[in-house]
Amino acid sequence: MRILLVGAGGTLGGAVRRALAARGHEVIGVGRSAGDLVADVTDPEAVARLYTEAGPLDAVAITAGDAVFRPLGELAADDFVTTFRGKALSQLELVRQGARHVAPTGSFTLVSGIIAEQPVVAGAAASAANGAVEAFVRTAAIELPPQRINAVSPTVAEESLPAYGPFFAGVEAVPAARVATAYVRSIEGAQTGQVYRIW
Amino acid sequence: MRILLVGAGGTLGGAVRRALAARGHEVIGVGRSAGDLVADVTDPEAVARLYTEAGPLDAVAITAGDAVFRPLGELAADDFVTTFRGKALSQLELVRQGARHVAPTGSFTLVSGIIAEQPVVAGAAASAANGAVEAFVRTAAIELPPQRINAVSPTVAEESLPAYGPFFAGVEAVPAARVATAYVRSIEGAQTGQVYRIW
Repeated sequence: MRILLVGAGGTLGGAVRRALAARGHEVIGVGRSAGDLVADVTDPEAVARLYTEAGPLDAVAITAGDAVFRPLGELAADDFVTTFRGKALSQLELVRQGARHVAPTGSFTLVSGIIAEQPVVAGAAASAANGAVEAFVRTAAIELPPQRINAVSPTVAEESLPAYGPFFAGVEAVPAARVATAYVRSIEGAQTGQVYRIW
Repeated sequence: MRILLVGAGGTLGGAVRRALAARGHEVIGVGRSAGDLVADVTDPEAVARLYTEAGPLDAVAITAGDAVFRPLGELAADDFVTTFRGKALSQLELVRQGARHVAPTGSFTLVSGIIAEQPVVAGAAASAANGAVEAFVRTAAIELPPQRINAVSPTVAEESLPAYGPFFAGVEAVPAARVATAYVRSIEGAQTGQVYRIW
């Protein structure tokens, strides 16, 4: 398949790229500043240009999401906005526009996260964005057929522990490669409306 | 208790006001254009003014939320933004700022909706906003104590069937007065981090 991978330069993105390439897929990596294609997917117009440049696609996989981690008492109003934009609206927009560009039997795989269901301190904005992604996936799944849509909800990646470990005390980490298997499952499988929890 | 009720002029808001008044509470009703206090809670500065005007509070109850219902293929990028702002960001901001204004043992009761979990066609944007609210409540519940926070997730109200009935074919409707009982439960009870499903 010809797969657009948004966030290909990140920790999870790299693992997903390797997993998909090992399965024989053609991966078009998208990054904000580097990649096969470059786009800031928080900008709807950039998403439109991205799909034009990408050409025919069988699947869109998203591993990119920027979220602010900050205790609720220190969060600013803008932190909510920034996090919705960076983790939720960006993915919803990739689906909204992508539905017209992806093959009729193609799929979308979004990224959520464990804190949509299992909260951690300082995760309020990120949890909200993840909850939005999962609820959106459930609804889009009844409107998109025959296209499919799922979310992958990873726990913290072992590779991300230096940056995010302090927020996830006692939460089991997994290698990004294990999270990547859920992307293969979503893309090559036949389910829709699922949240694949890797935790 | 002294309770700020945001959305007091709406169908659900009216039912919640009656339920709270019947329990002997003092209700300060907030509406966008009319009410004991007037505020557009999608504007963080208006929320700040609202709390200053409201004075001491034991609880904040929110029944207001604007969401766009439109098939995924007809949704515009702005519909996502408008819906997040009208149903999710507004409530998150009322909590973020309210934590400094509500009594230490006070509570917040937010409104979500059945489609966070049980999707309907044309509900993608609203589902996402509801999912955000519920995930936020779970996280805020571990950061706010001794303050509490819950969400009420209503099915469509019988009183709202003329407007929303077409989106909810075969989904059981309930009187707004029944949804209002969950607000009493949240405000007078001791639980936190709950989603009270009235469906």
